Amino acid sequence: MMHSKLRQHIERLVPLTDAEYAFVEKHFVFRKFKKHQFMVQRGEPVPYNYFLLSGLTKLVYTDEETEKQYILAFAMEDWWDNDFEAYYTRTKATLSMECLEDTEALCLSLDDFNALRAGLPKIEHFFLEKVMAGFLAGQRRILSLMTSSAQERYKQFAGQHPSLLQRLPKTQLAAYLGVSRETLSRLDF
Amino acid sequence: MMHSKLRQHIERLVPLTDAEYAFVEKHFVFRKFKKHQFMVQRGEPVPYNYFLLSGLTKLVYTDEETEKQYILAFAMEDWWDNDFEAYYTRTKATLSMECLEDTEALCLSLDDFNALRAGLPKIEHFFLEKVMAGFLAGQRRILSLMTSSAQERYKQFAGQHPSLLQRLPKTQLAAYLGVSRETLSRLDF
Repeated sequence: MMHSKLRQHIERLVPLTDAEYAFVEKHFVFRKFKKHQFMVQRGEPVPYNYFLLSGLTKLVYTDEETEKQYILAFAMEDWWDNDFEAYYTRTKATLSMECLEDTEALCLSLDDFNALRAGLPKIEHFFLEKVMAGFLAGQRRILSLMTSSAQERYKQFAGQHPSLLQRLPKTQLAAYLGVSRETLSRLDF
Repeated sequence: MMHSKLRQHIERLVPLTDAEYAFVEKHFVFRKFKKHQFMVQRGEPVPYNYFLLSGLTKLVYTDEETEKQYILAFAMEDWWDNDFEAYYTRTKATLSMECLEDTEALCLSLDDFNALRAGLPKIEHFFLEKVMAGFLAGQRRILSLMTSSAQERYKQFAGQHPSLLQRLPKTQLAAYLGVSRETLSRLDF
């Protein structure tokens, strides 16, 4: 029972016996990453999905021609993040995931994910709820990108993630909002 | 076994016995909607989730001040669509879902969805795969909105949904791409 954070995280949605949790945990591998290290690297396979125990990461798309970075998501402790498409389809990453702080994660291979689902069907209830929450957050982000100004998106982000806002370098936040560092300075006073 | 389309749709991911499918089907209600009818109306409760058997719908956000319409999604036969957030959280709709053609749907209340999951846990495997596919499509759309021009988004849409492109009124496609009807004419020759 080393990683009680994972157990608490799952048990918010699905109660587990000690034996069930031991079965869950043995499918994960614990790893540490340094600030600036890449957990997922564009063009490489994506063998793991990541549940973060500590630290901060960014998920990035880099335009090949201009080298401009677009940040799709940030993640911190208690969050899952990945190039999910590459992971699920066993294709090479089109995104990169980089540590903005030293980060600790529990890593789940796709084979272990499938073995876990087959061996403990009630874990699918947990993952369905998590993926649904991610889907709904994505719908809100799409609507926000279609309808809101950068200033409105900044306010939405600050309202939803006040603690994350404090930890993020401003250049990273600007790349998430799709504005320049200079424009962000005018929004954030 | 009236609605074999639903059974085929589920069995692409999860095999079902006749008894299991009969249990699934009894949680759904069949309804017909006319062209221009609202299946979900902004400001109203959202009692059902919809699996479309035929027809075509659009999911729309309308700016209160300008009355401008933003189309989040289209759906046609074999697709699910809804103001999912309002449905799952039992809140009032912020989106509307309107029929662009006469539409037939199987309707699933949230209580029936929960009863179905509790009574047939393997159906969660099916819904997890469907929601994951929706989540990944959302990630692609977010990336596309952040990085691509209207012309690139038009080409992506045409490549992914050639049959839908033929059925859609041009004004609706323009509202999905976030361009004016005139701009669309220049993209689509």
